[in-house]
Amino acid sequence: MGHEFDRDIEIDHAADGTYAADLAPGWVVGGGINGGYALAVIGNALRSTAGSRPDPIAVSAYYLSATTPGPATVATRTLREGGSVTTLAADLAQDGQQRITALATYGALDGLPDDVRTTATEPDLPPLEECLPSSMAPEEVLRIAPLMQRFDFRMDPAYAGWAVGKPSGSGVIQAWFRLADGREPDPISLLMTLDALPPVTFDLGMPGWAPTLELTAHVRAVPAPGWLKVRHATRNLAGGMFEEDCEVWDSTGRLVAQSRQLARQPRSVEGG
Amino acid sequence: MGHEFDRDIEIDHAADGTYAADLAPGWVVGGGINGGYALAVIGNALRSTAGSRPDPIAVSAYYLSATTPGPATVATRTLREGGSVTTLAADLAQDGQQRITALATYGALDGLPDDVRTTATEPDLPPLEECLPSSMAPEEVLRIAPLMQRFDFRMDPAYAGWAVGKPSGSGVIQAWFRLADGREPDPISLLMTLDALPPVTFDLGMPGWAPTLELTAHVRAVPAPGWLKVRHATRNLAGGMFEEDCEVWDSTGRLVAQSRQLARQPRSVEGG
Repeated sequence: MGHEFDRDIEIDHAADGTYAADLAPGWVVGGGINGGYALAVIGNALRSTAGSRPDPIAVSAYYLSATTPGPATVATRTLREGGSVTTLAADLAQDGQQRITALATYGALDGLPDDVRTTATEPDLPPLEECLPSSMAPEEVLRIAPLMQRFDFRMDPAYAGWAVGKPSGSGVIQAWFRLADGREPDPISLLMTLDALPPVTFDLGMPGWAPTLELTAHVRAVPAPGWLKVRHATRNLAGGMFEEDCEVWDSTGRLVAQSRQLARQPRSVEGG
Repeated sequence: MGHEFDRDIEIDHAADGTYAADLAPGWVVGGGINGGYALAVIGNALRSTAGSRPDPIAVSAYYLSATTPGPATVATRTLREGGSVTTLAADLAQDGQQRITALATYGALDGLPDDVRTTATEPDLPPLEECLPSSMAPEEVLRIAPLMQRFDFRMDPAYAGWAVGKPSGSGVIQAWFRLADGREPDPISLLMTLDALPPVTFDLGMPGWAPTLELTAHVRAVPAPGWLKVRHATRNLAGGMFEEDCEVWDSTGRLVAQSRQLARQPRSVEGG
């Protein structure tokens, strides 16, 4: 049987560095497929091409047009095999149209030195049982975001007021996170996790999904099993765009992934 | 005559989307050419290809091998012209070897909506005359980093203790910044400014230049003339790598550019 996520990111090697994928309808949000899920599909193809360097260390994706459920191809190219990392490129296409283009550095996270000198601190989340389960999301959110059913996340109520029309205005969303069927995190699933939660603009009183222009993910360590803590924040909403930073912490309290994306402000603006 | 920076990023159109450049020796740091300067050369070629959308909005560069002073080619490709932005790719090569590969979104910053709802706050810098001029940098720094002479920057003394063997340990470097010959900032020069200062690892007691694996720049507005404020910070030094976030603020107090890079920890480690 296996887990849903693994089935949904499955790829078949078609020809020299090119893979066939089938984007699953369960990951739809708004007008298209969730960008984080699509990134994990690309990441899975790159892993296959990268061979003995199986882990994404840095991945930058530029979203050209909306992906939709159904067949897709992922064409990968190795640009350089260095002493310890490999740089690659990937293009995801549907119906002959390029949807996402990406650059990536792959390596072996297990082989990195053990030193950790971080000044970053874990998100301060209330205990699981005091957070709001994703299953309690408003009907309208679940309708435009079937992907919410892939997850079991528990939102910090301090930044969940938008669900009842009272956004905190902080530009923050944070939650406990795991996949609904209990599939444990790994470096590829982290690529999805970095873009899984609702956009931070919800917390600024702007409902509506926010299309990503560019997202760069850094995976810094292999995550331990168990619940993840995910925190999204934005500081600069300007010129119709905002940056969204994401951090993912594992159950041992280690910062395992970071990302920044540049996204367009949702069209329908309330509050403000 | 013109300004040094403009001469040094000059490109000649050679063929369909390909440009000839000449990387100037004045931008050497450590074993190669400064990554921010190289990014500005690439950004200048992309600007030429992007035509009526002249401004970099997002640029992600992956550094494959060290660039050196001398001739280079920049091959550009337009991937998609959307409703308001164009996505492009670029490859910088020397001696037939790919040095840097990049993806980018270009647009017209002047045409963006005026709304600004930022919660980010300007770096808190002492007045210019209380900061340490780059010309006072230690001899060994100037020797490995001729590029320092391109700038007139004034470091916040609170994070400049590394220059006398007393790093603050905060992982922060911040300074007033301008080009030495007074050339005013613009969106292309911001690409350089985002990677101009010494690496934040200096402030963690790790001398030595830190090779960039990946750098993504977001240019959020056309900068006003005058001094810029630049702040670099890292929070997660782990596994031999660290992320370095940079912000550039213009003389009107607007956040005009943001970047994050993933770099390798310098080899020679002191303090720690």
